Amino acid sequence: MGRANGWSRSSRPAEAESGLNGMEIRMIKVGIYGASGYTGFELTGILLGHPEVELVFATSASYAGKKMSEVFPCLLDLELIQPAKADPGKVEAVFCCLPHTASMETIRKIYRPGLRVIDLSADFRFSDPEAFRKWYGVEHVAPELIKKAAYGLPELFRREIALSEIVGNPGCYPTGAILAVAPLAAEKLLEKNAEIIIDAKSGVSGAGRKLDLATHFVEVNENIVPYKLGRTHRHVGEIEAVLSRLAGRELKVAFTPQLVPISRGILSTVYVRTGTREFAEIVKLYRQFYRDEPFVTVLEDGQPAQLGYVRYNNRCVIGLHQVEGTALMMVSSAIDNLVKGAAGQAVHNFNIMFGISETTGLTAAGGRI
Amino acid sequence: MGRANGWSRSSRPAEAESGLNGMEIRMIKVGIYGASGYTGFELTGILLGHPEVELVFATSASYAGKKMSEVFPCLLDLELIQPAKADPGKVEAVFCCLPHTASMETIRKIYRPGLRVIDLSADFRFSDPEAFRKWYGVEHVAPELIKKAAYGLPELFRREIALSEIVGNPGCYPTGAILAVAPLAAEKLLEKNAEIIIDAKSGVSGAGRKLDLATHFVEVNENIVPYKLGRTHRHVGEIEAVLSRLAGRELKVAFTPQLVPISRGILSTVYVRTGTREFAEIVKLYRQFYRDEPFVTVLEDGQPAQLGYVRYNNRCVIGLHQVEGTALMMVSSAIDNLVKGAAGQAVHNFNIMFGISETTGLTAAGGRI
Amino acid sequence: MGRANGWSRSSRPAEAESGLNGMEIRMIKVGIYGASGYTGFELTGILLGHPEVELVFATSASYAGKKMSEVFPCLLDLELIQPAKADPGKVEAVFCCLPHTASMETIRKIYRPGLRVIDLSADFRFSDPEAFRKWYGVEHVAPELIKKAAYGLPELFRREIALSEIVGNPGCYPTGAILAVAPLAAEKLLEKNAEIIIDAKSGVSGAGRKLDLATHFVEVNENIVPYKLGRTHRHVGEIEAVLSRLAGRELKVAFTPQLVPISRGILSTVYVRTGTREFAEIVKLYRQFYRDEPFVTVLEDGQPAQLGYVRYNNRCVIGLHQVEGTALMMVSSAIDNLVKGAAGQAVHNFNIMFGISETTGLTAAGGRI
Amino acid sequence: MGRANGWSRSSRPAEAESGLNGMEIRMIKVGIYGASGYTGFELTGILLGHPEVELVFATSASYAGKKMSEVFPCLLDLELIQPAKADPGKVEAVFCCLPHTASMETIRKIYRPGLRVIDLSADFRFSDPEAFRKWYGVEHVAPELIKKAAYGLPELFRREIALSEIVGNPGCYPTGAILAVAPLAAEKLLEKNAEIIIDAKSGVSGAGRKLDLATHFVEVNENIVPYKLGRTHRHVGEIEAVLSRLAGRELKVAFTPQLVPISRGILSTVYVRTGTREFAEIVKLYRQFYRDEPFVTVLEDGQPAQLGYVRYNNRCVIGLHQVEGTALMMVSSAIDNLVKGAAGQAVHNFNIMFGISETTGLTAAGGRI
Repeated sequence: MGRANGWSRSSRPAEAESGLNGMEIRMIKVGIYGASGYTGFELTGILLGHPEVELVFATSASYAGKKMSEVFPCLLDLELIQPAKADPGKVEAVFCCLPHTASMETIRKIYRPGLRVIDLSADFRFSDPEAFRKWYGVEHVAPELIKKAAYGLPELFRREIALSEIVGNPGCYPTGAILAVAPLAAEKLLEKNAEIIIDAKSGVSGAGRKLDLATHFVEVNENIVPYKLGRTHRHVGEIEAVLSRLAGRELKVAFTPQLVPISRGILSTVYVRTGTREFAEIVKLYRQFYRDEPFVTVLEDGQPAQLGYVRYNNRCVIGLHQVEGTALMMVSSAIDNLVKGAAGQAVHNFNIMFGISETTGLTAAGGRI
Repeated sequence: MGRANGWSRSSRPAEAESGLNGMEIRMIKVGIYGASGYTGFELTGILLGHPEVELVFATSASYAGKKMSEVFPCLLDLELIQPAKADPGKVEAVFCCLPHTASMETIRKIYRPGLRVIDLSADFRFSDPEAFRKWYGVEHVAPELIKKAAYGLPELFRREIALSEIVGNPGCYPTGAILAVAPLAAEKLLEKNAEIIIDAKSGVSGAGRKLDLATHFVEVNENIVPYKLGRTHRHVGEIEAVLSRLAGRELKVAFTPQLVPISRGILSTVYVRTGTREFAEIVKLYRQFYRDEPFVTVLEDGQPAQLGYVRYNNRCVIGLHQVEGTALMMVSSAIDNLVKGAAGQAVHNFNIMFGISETTGLTAAGGRI
Repeated sequence: MGRANGWSRSSRPAEAESGLNGMEIRMIKVGIYGASGYTGFELTGILLGHPEVELVFATSASYAGKKMSEVFPCLLDLELIQPAKADPGKVEAVFCCLPHTASMETIRKIYRPGLRVIDLSADFRFSDPEAFRKWYGVEHVAPELIKKAAYGLPELFRREIALSEIVGNPGCYPTGAILAVAPLAAEKLLEKNAEIIIDAKSGVSGAGRKLDLATHFVEVNENIVPYKLGRTHRHVGEIEAVLSRLAGRELKVAFTPQLVPISRGILSTVYVRTGTREFAEIVKLYRQFYRDEPFVTVLEDGQPAQLGYVRYNNRCVIGLHQVEGTALMMVSSAIDNLVKGAAGQAVHNFNIMFGISETTGLTAAGGRI
Repeated sequence: MGRANGWSRSSRPAEAESGLNGMEIRMIKVGIYGASGYTGFELTGILLGHPEVELVFATSASYAGKKMSEVFPCLLDLELIQPAKADPGKVEAVFCCLPHTASMETIRKIYRPGLRVIDLSADFRFSDPEAFRKWYGVEHVAPELIKKAAYGLPELFRREIALSEIVGNPGCYPTGAILAVAPLAAEKLLEKNAEIIIDAKSGVSGAGRKLDLATHFVEVNENIVPYKLGRTHRHVGEIEAVLSRLAGRELKVAFTPQLVPISRGILSTVYVRTGTREFAEIVKLYRQFYRDEPFVTVLEDGQPAQLGYVRYNNRCVIGLHQVEGTALMMVSSAIDNLVKGAAGQAVHNFNIMFGISETTGLTAAGGRI
């Protein structure tokens, strides 16, 4: 369990303080920029439970000077500090949970060779600055750093992640959607001239903690709200870029994000045309593809993915479904948007970058009611 | 407001008792079989507010002898009676909210020329007894009555409904899905060799009130659960039959029903290929198609359907969405499964059958928070 | 059904347009200040369904120039106008859904003898300007108007309401709490030296539509949040003032408001000491007290109040509960905070002020799932 | 992390398999009776993560022969076995998650000196068989074993728990309620002749997984349902027995359990009269009383307890609230009913019985969104 600067007293069981009982573990010093959003809070919790991490600082522009317990209903007396007061020179790794564009500004400033950066914004997800400009509407301020960045989906880009100084942690929707389709794309099993249809339902934490009428309880409750439909949501660019890279040709997606009255989780139902390939063969392919992955499970027997499997853990579960009498199939995938879709995957990437066992500090087990 | 046999005292404003102030309105006597499920309860509420209806009996095998106020948290002292004690000879119309197969047994027994029957089960939704057997796994017990039945989707089959003795009230999923696609099917704008993909999310009242682990609060809350995927759900048969009839050729659907943690409402997102047709033209077509419909609204400007529009009313709202750069489009549709998807549509059918103004007793206005 | 200036086309069934079929009904012209909050929206819906009302204007400072359908997911093309553009000279009654203090400013400006004002803010709930200053922290700007105002709880002050030019519509918490205790206070059955304990749970619409972290879906969901405890919430002043007036002596309350993850409704559980009085006698007293009330129901047999009874209607249901072996009893009361706790009660008051049958335009029936 | 018989493969990170890196830890063999309810499932999860536990068997009469992953949406391939097939001779400790009365039957059968039993039913919560008979309506079948049992609230009875062979794990409501009042009872600060009023709101998992209309999603959602009011709920007996023992005199409680639309958690607001004692002194007393408790936190500054603090962890948070101008005070307390209110507390008791550090295997940290 991560050593921390005194502020973890109230939240940590006494025996944990004693560490791993005499073993010599090199603690890696890390810092968090932007710890007071939902993602930053989740990440803080995971890092405090990580046995090889020492959390050196956690910043928040809005809540600097306050304890985490004053920002969330929790008991962490971790003090949030002004970003300007954080000293990145004192850490080996930095997690950036800042908004898009703010993130690249900060990373440009703190970058130094050897520092590992896991960026949870979109700023380092595109290998092409032009694509970034297209989807985010601004010029990238650090195009030279993009070259040092890997796309942080470990199941697909583990090696690059290990070797990179910067990781662009995937968006929540792309994580669930890409994992659902990756085996088909990589094995060239997707019919030409057929878009990939992604119908995705997200919990409200995915929309962040900023104030917005769209996340007011009364607007969300007993409702389902589709938004940014067709090919207009920014995650379309990210999903298409990654899947096209896998497939070796340009793929298009139709994307339907929807807000549903739950706090956490994304369920994606993905429709693809796989032509004449036998369904049983496709199932075998998926099992093979994810065989050694600690955080992906292909469910059995046409069992559909549901959020119950992934709540509060870093797993993605995938269900495969025949549409009999057609060339279509459906893939269901479920993740917890704050864990596998954000903070958990960031720590997975961190583990890979530092050569730590991949599951350290992460819960893989599914199934909390 | 419907006159009722004394048991409406506590629930009805005093002035309503006085009726429509001297106007001579012929009250139509009706009965309900199966009033103690969610659909039956909703229907009871609508009929009690219907100004040209007198509710003569309401049956419940499980709760016979109890008042409605003992079955639901409501104040209706309406007494539920044994089905055997109901006298269909005393009414002009019967609403059947019984389970599938139980319904056709009852209707066969009570049928007499002139009696109008609105059946909310699936038993009279298929014009082909063979199709019924295929999807419901039992032989139809009254195939001769099927010929007297219309499919009760007023927007498509108004004339047949007016002339029929029996109406098979549509299923909740089919109502939202068919209305979303009907204009394209009827105008032959659907590409050949492309299935219609229906991704539908339903509130839990759609699963009925019977005890089932799948509807336990803890299993539903903070979850989304797909079930009966591909082409296995019984509503696939109903949707395909109706759309194929409209299109004049066999259409296939891929159907993904999902349970979401809300009480009421179905949001369907439907993916279709419309080839080279201009999107603007399609929008015009939809507006034209539903122009005179009192209960269907085509939203403006790519505004998506959401449940907020239809909660507690008999409306279906439809949003039309381009997927730019592709031959795909998406249609979003929202209904309240207990109103437009069941009891409200049943009363709409009743109004048509009796030549009453179609909106009588029904709320069309959208927008309760 | 209220005639409206053209903007109700899309939301109103055709036959309703024809009005009440030739009867001569004098339509009362009314205006709404502040129609774009939850209360204003609910009120708009009720007034549009009121058969003796013509809605002349509806203002919104934030959304002026927009249609209601652009502000809420509804289909009302009612245009919201700038408050300055509203002409109170053209109406006989005004409903004020403005925030506290903004309301008295507006009412002072538009006041003229003969105009009836129903104010849904707190500004005219106190007969004593000093009490207003104490609880709301500002000087009342129109103390002379306070004298013309009645407290709009019809069950207690029907006669005053009928005769007043201004009605201070009760707060949502006070409505449920006062009705739960009024018979005991009026009959002097409350033990001396024993505070009234009110444990109240409110749906989130009670907190309004303004942006606030406290109403973010993620903060509310799966949570229960008590706030402003003890005797600090402003509604304490209102409750104590009214109950003390009834009892003829100073009564004190301990008040625990709590936010729960529902959209609508307030459930209050109220603990009082009634000394040696027989419980059966108290039950009889409550039945007697509310015997002729169209909107209050005393439940039978220790049946507890629950929100199911009052959802979307103007009723208050009350349950009476013995705590055996003690001098305590518990009263449970349920209301829909937006109807009986706000807009519905405002229309009830309006009906009384204009000598219309009290239940006109209001739904009393309980029990929507 | 608990070694397990092969079935934990899919759910456990690889590195955890290596255990605590060479340290010699004596693994304690345990069994679970009744693992397929919500409490049993939660307990299974905690025990599988407990570093000094080896889970030898988990029984389920209803699901014997199935894997846990077939019973809950989880990935545990743990096989559930028939109770008759479980061999209690092979374990040192048994957790009983059976229903009341079934539990004492099983425990009577498997009892042997030296075996430690943590019973999560009510069967060993009463030291007096007569009180058990009164509240549960049946004769206790093993009164001689009651003498060997302690009441498993560690904060009050740690020493007895350590020395007992059987622990009656407290009910969920009693845990939150007793901890809220214990300091006042123990210090004799409660006014005579004044009942303790406990207004408690529970998540639906507290009602168990058995099928019941009361836990149907549609009945619970958008509702709050009080039940078994006054002094009729069985937990009244448990609360009164424990608090009376602390106070050294008979105390009475008025208890209002309520079901709210959340899955997990109990929020209790407790009203007590503390006479002339200074509030600040009482605050000091609470802090002193719980100073060394790893799982109880007294919040600061009148901060109210809310479920956010305790979700998915074993903590109880307590808020203290003055009702100024009165002799009343209010105590708010929050627990997760499945953790501190059931499975977590059971493991806490287990740790105490086996002399393990108390927090082993338990999460104390508050604050998951």
